[in-house]
Amino acid sequence: MKDFDAIFKGALDELHSEGRYRVFAELVRHCGHFPRARRLTANGEQDVTVWCSNDYLGMGQHPKVIEAMKEAIDHCGVGAGGTRNISGTTLYHVLLERELADLHGKESALIFTSGYVSNWAALGTLGAKIPGLIIFSDAFNHASMIEGIRYAKCEKVIWKHNDLADLEAKLAAADTNVPKLIAFESVYSMDGDIAPIKEICDLADKYGAMTYLDEVHAVGMYGPRGGGIAEREGLMDRVTVIEGTLGKAFGVMGGYIAASSALCDFIRSFASGFIFTTALPPALAAGSLESIRHLKASQFERVRQRESVRKVRSLLDQRGIPHMPNPSHIVPVMVGDAAKCKWISDLLLDNFGIYLQPINYPTVPKKTERLRITPTPLHSDADIEHLAEALHSLWSDCALARHVA
Amino acid sequence: MKDFDAIFKGALDELHSEGRYRVFAELVRHCGHFPRARRLTANGEQDVTVWCSNDYLGMGQHPKVIEAMKEAIDHCGVGAGGTRNISGTTLYHVLLERELADLHGKESALIFTSGYVSNWAALGTLGAKIPGLIIFSDAFNHASMIEGIRYAKCEKVIWKHNDLADLEAKLAAADTNVPKLIAFESVYSMDGDIAPIKEICDLADKYGAMTYLDEVHAVGMYGPRGGGIAEREGLMDRVTVIEGTLGKAFGVMGGYIAASSALCDFIRSFASGFIFTTALPPALAAGSLESIRHLKASQFERVRQRESVRKVRSLLDQRGIPHMPNPSHIVPVMVGDAAKCKWISDLLLDNFGIYLQPINYPTVPKKTERLRITPTPLHSDADIEHLAEALHSLWSDCALARHVA
Repeated sequence: MKDFDAIFKGALDELHSEGRYRVFAELVRHCGHFPRARRLTANGEQDVTVWCSNDYLGMGQHPKVIEAMKEAIDHCGVGAGGTRNISGTTLYHVLLERELADLHGKESALIFTSGYVSNWAALGTLGAKIPGLIIFSDAFNHASMIEGIRYAKCEKVIWKHNDLADLEAKLAAADTNVPKLIAFESVYSMDGDIAPIKEICDLADKYGAMTYLDEVHAVGMYGPRGGGIAEREGLMDRVTVIEGTLGKAFGVMGGYIAASSALCDFIRSFASGFIFTTALPPALAAGSLESIRHLKASQFERVRQRESVRKVRSLLDQRGIPHMPNPSHIVPVMVGDAAKCKWISDLLLDNFGIYLQPINYPTVPKKTERLRITPTPLHSDADIEHLAEALHSLWSDCALARHVA
Repeated sequence: MKDFDAIFKGALDELHSEGRYRVFAELVRHCGHFPRARRLTANGEQDVTVWCSNDYLGMGQHPKVIEAMKEAIDHCGVGAGGTRNISGTTLYHVLLERELADLHGKESALIFTSGYVSNWAALGTLGAKIPGLIIFSDAFNHASMIEGIRYAKCEKVIWKHNDLADLEAKLAAADTNVPKLIAFESVYSMDGDIAPIKEICDLADKYGAMTYLDEVHAVGMYGPRGGGIAEREGLMDRVTVIEGTLGKAFGVMGGYIAASSALCDFIRSFASGFIFTTALPPALAAGSLESIRHLKASQFERVRQRESVRKVRSLLDQRGIPHMPNPSHIVPVMVGDAAKCKWISDLLLDNFGIYLQPINYPTVPKKTERLRITPTPLHSDADIEHLAEALHSLWSDCALARHVA
């Protein structure tokens, strides 16, 4: 027998030596005390403030969501018990799909077990099943979109990130008669920049392309009903497919697409990653439903989140802590070195009770390692002050470069 | 703009004309009344008995599982709020991975959002990252395993289903020096037959191959602690990777692998489908943990399930209803025609309140369409009698072939 473990250990040793071996922080959360958590280590326990959660609005601990989930569990139990086709579809799934279609002003919606799977399955199926389709993919698209396109084995053209001129040049260079799809995101997770959706839709119209927009870092947080950037900008009807997640601002788990009935039915009927997997537990659908309904009506969380973001940026600026400017809720503090990034993160945790996971390759390109701050409506002014002071102190201790205004 | 919807509609029309367009039954379950459910239709509601659930033991409605989930929700909210690396790991995840490692007698375990993703990510990563790996894949492996191997782009050799001579011939024909992995299932979902695990492990030893065993239709149900067929046969230590699900007999949602620490750490560190996706909600981990612990100790559900299976087979035999013989808990009643299969299923539902989803292509090969009965510990003798009588009556009405003993 070959010594397979030696192969695995060798690959892991490389990660260690590059300083990018990942150690997961082990947390115990206290419902009602978001963004507080208890961190468990080999040496004991520690209270921390989480600054890197994608439960962007704290909806994962919202009393309405919790009640809806518990009620659903009492009502119908836990697991779905089958694929959507084989006994796994409940009323909650159907209502959730209707709610999502309504949220995005589309005829229909389709839920998946995760945002990752929704991108992989939807893009994969469109690319594999539409004869001759070329997918024009933004260079910074998420791993799940890249894997979906790779799965499709269709022609793929990568255009420069958010670069309309490059996109147009590439659309113009393609055969006018072949079907085309432009795949991109609204808010890019790691840089927090936002795509020019209108202009991309204009190009799509000009060149007869479909558009596929990933709004996972936007749904719940942008637009008057939380429909995302496309809603805020009045563009939802111009996008062919809107993809979103139930696991970030909505605070639960799962992914979805919203589109025409024919398109959703097509993905429903042909996507391996939809057909051959157990449906979401009904209670997750029930919790998501409640969260979406709440955020359709309430502006409170969105307004407070924007205030927190503004305060964090302002306090960092006052102290010369360099963060990437962008128009979203994501505040990336650039470090540019895997080992140093982990080191700062460890010090924040150990000395200041601030949990800010280092973001390293392959999540971001090498040499752009960063701390990615996600201020929420539930971080207090004192939390923000403490974060800024901690970074300030570390920036002095570690002789890190400051931003000069 | 091309008329993309016409492409989708055209493809869907084909499904309609082949009689394999899928209509999902919309169910409302009543917790505590498993396997009973209410079915919603355009014309009203109907009480049905579910006979096709993969909540094989009814654990999705077990009071302990429900309590554990509700407690976890009260304790820490709903969503994990991030990937496992970025704030998404809680104590529940860690405890669940330890419990699964213990269940299978392995050093370590790793959880995924679904069984589908665990196969896709684990096989995909092994195949992509081990230089020169050849994966020997059973011809009947699940879609998720096939997609994982396809993702890997490594060399793939398909061997005839459960055929040791063919497997050996193919192993012998490969270069002795290249790394090899044999991928197979224990209980095959649609035929219910069981792989010769020992003999496959013998071949793996002889040819220096790793083994990857999918036990999703066995965990919880076979072996003294519900560790699956490999546990029942004392073979867990001989299998390199055991893959399982939390969404079938354990009644919740999610998938996992159990293997050496180095292998699990390798998948954890390199698998796109693990890294770039939001972690399971802590409450699902808590519910799974409780379910696994219960089924490690309790024989009641397994014994009752076997009794139900035996009774169903016996009553079908008495009436000459043809079902595929196999040594598992799955009772496939063969129909062999998509339209007829759907027709019988509709009649069972409408006239007898029996919900038995037709299984058609691509879940099974064309011309092997079937009704797949999954008797549970909670189906009563009266339920079983009613099912057998309903099939008996339909077999007469529809002049279907009987089995002659």
